Amino acid sequence: MGTKNQKSIGVFDSGIGGLTVVRALLEKLPNENIVYFGDTARVPYGSKSAQVVREYTQDDTDFLLSKDVKMIVVACNTVSAVALDVVQKRANLPVTGVIIPGAEAAMNSTKNKRIGVIGTAGTVNSNAYAHELKRLNNSVNVFSKACPLFVPLVEEGWLENKATELIVNDYLFPLITEKIDTLILGCTHYPLLKRTISKVTKGAVTLIDSGEAAAATVETMLEKLDLRNTSKEKPNVQFFVSDAPEKFTSVGELFFGKKLGVVRRVVIGKG
Amino acid sequence: MGTKNQKSIGVFDSGIGGLTVVRALLEKLPNENIVYFGDTARVPYGSKSAQVVREYTQDDTDFLLSKDVKMIVVACNTVSAVALDVVQKRANLPVTGVIIPGAEAAMNSTKNKRIGVIGTAGTVNSNAYAHELKRLNNSVNVFSKACPLFVPLVEEGWLENKATELIVNDYLFPLITEKIDTLILGCTHYPLLKRTISKVTKGAVTLIDSGEAAAATVETMLEKLDLRNTSKEKPNVQFFVSDAPEKFTSVGELFFGKKLGVVRRVVIGKG
Repeated sequence: MGTKNQKSIGVFDSGIGGLTVVRALLEKLPNENIVYFGDTARVPYGSKSAQVVREYTQDDTDFLLSKDVKMIVVACNTVSAVALDVVQKRANLPVTGVIIPGAEAAMNSTKNKRIGVIGTAGTVNSNAYAHELKRLNNSVNVFSKACPLFVPLVEEGWLENKATELIVNDYLFPLITEKIDTLILGCTHYPLLKRTISKVTKGAVTLIDSGEAAAATVETMLEKLDLRNTSKEKPNVQFFVSDAPEKFTSVGELFFGKKLGVVRRVVIGKG
Repeated sequence: MGTKNQKSIGVFDSGIGGLTVVRALLEKLPNENIVYFGDTARVPYGSKSAQVVREYTQDDTDFLLSKDVKMIVVACNTVSAVALDVVQKRANLPVTGVIIPGAEAAMNSTKNKRIGVIGTAGTVNSNAYAHELKRLNNSVNVFSKACPLFVPLVEEGWLENKATELIVNDYLFPLITEKIDTLILGCTHYPLLKRTISKVTKGAVTLIDSGEAAAATVETMLEKLDLRNTSKEKPNVQFFVSDAPEKFTSVGELFFGKKLGVVRRVVIGKG
């Protein structure tokens, strides 16, 4: 047990959504120090090309490395889907994304082996969840659907109104028709739509929050690597963003479930 | 009449929406060469801070200057609202945004001096349209509303469905209640929602397309400065973007009204 264990867990996301992952991490691992980076100056990643997401991922990783973290959690589904190897190559540290934990949790849940996946265009087009699910069990049937309107609906705070319900219904209809019994919420924003999704799916589909699944994976990894922080000091959670912090601070509460405290801007990606 | 007149008009936007402005320019000025730049790697601008938009605007301007354009058209409402001075200071060239042309067209249209403005959060929070309208006529009443869901709805191609109608109705209701007779579409994406907006406003409100208004301003400026291209050569319209060109090329047709031809990626904003 030394200072290494007291180092922070580094978490990054394209923007604000990764706060749902930090929230899950803090519930499971309340003693851990955390450094969060949200690339709010270049958000979203989910509608951009894999090439650009991989370039941005380099900058995000370098920022966390500059904070001397003990491991890196890629909270962003799009990065986890198309650029996890970029993080792994750049950081000589334990790394986890959200895809493998989410896929494993879905496999543990499904009874009829018919699993739905929703996410950004980048995540869905990558087929990363389908690939991982098939690797776990080749007989599983996977039905995917990109839902580009979910993020702006959540950021507008329209979680349960009539228009949101219509849009959720439009996107999910083809998956419901396929009789899925489990649905992976493959984007950090989507857990905020759980109630509306449950209403539309009439409670008949188990919703998998990839962020929660990732938090469980982080716990297991830290245990295995003997990297848990057992210090009795009050843990430190630091937030950094690449755009002005005001919007992140105000909207962030919705994702984080409580006030964020100080959020600082850092300039990244230059040079 | 010399080579100066044959230089291109430079147009830039945060992404794809500025193509509606290029379309309006080509209708009015079919002999002009055009260089278009869309910052698709960092889109959107409308939800980001003025500080970051001003930084990005420097890069966008520098790119157009590297193409030796004869004037610059800021197609992006958000940039026109919060960073037009950045372009003007950086480029020793004629420059126009879309705010002043849009405000003038609205003033020419209104009978009851009650004008609505819709746009991104960045545009609306800047109060740029209201400021300009008041400058033109201090007795005008301006009612503004940010509509963050319109851009993703348009990019999803959901121009006239039920959910879109509900959302348009939700956003416009406070403006309709104020009995506006004229509505400025203060974002390059919004002209694609004209039919649904007209339906919701029951045809009782004149819609002002700022991009069309800006094209008329460009014509006047070129005439006045003796910069019209009178060459009989087939004009050249070049498209550059900062992300991979595929999505821009495919979705762009919706905005441009016809096929775009070659779109090239350029890396900007580094260093």
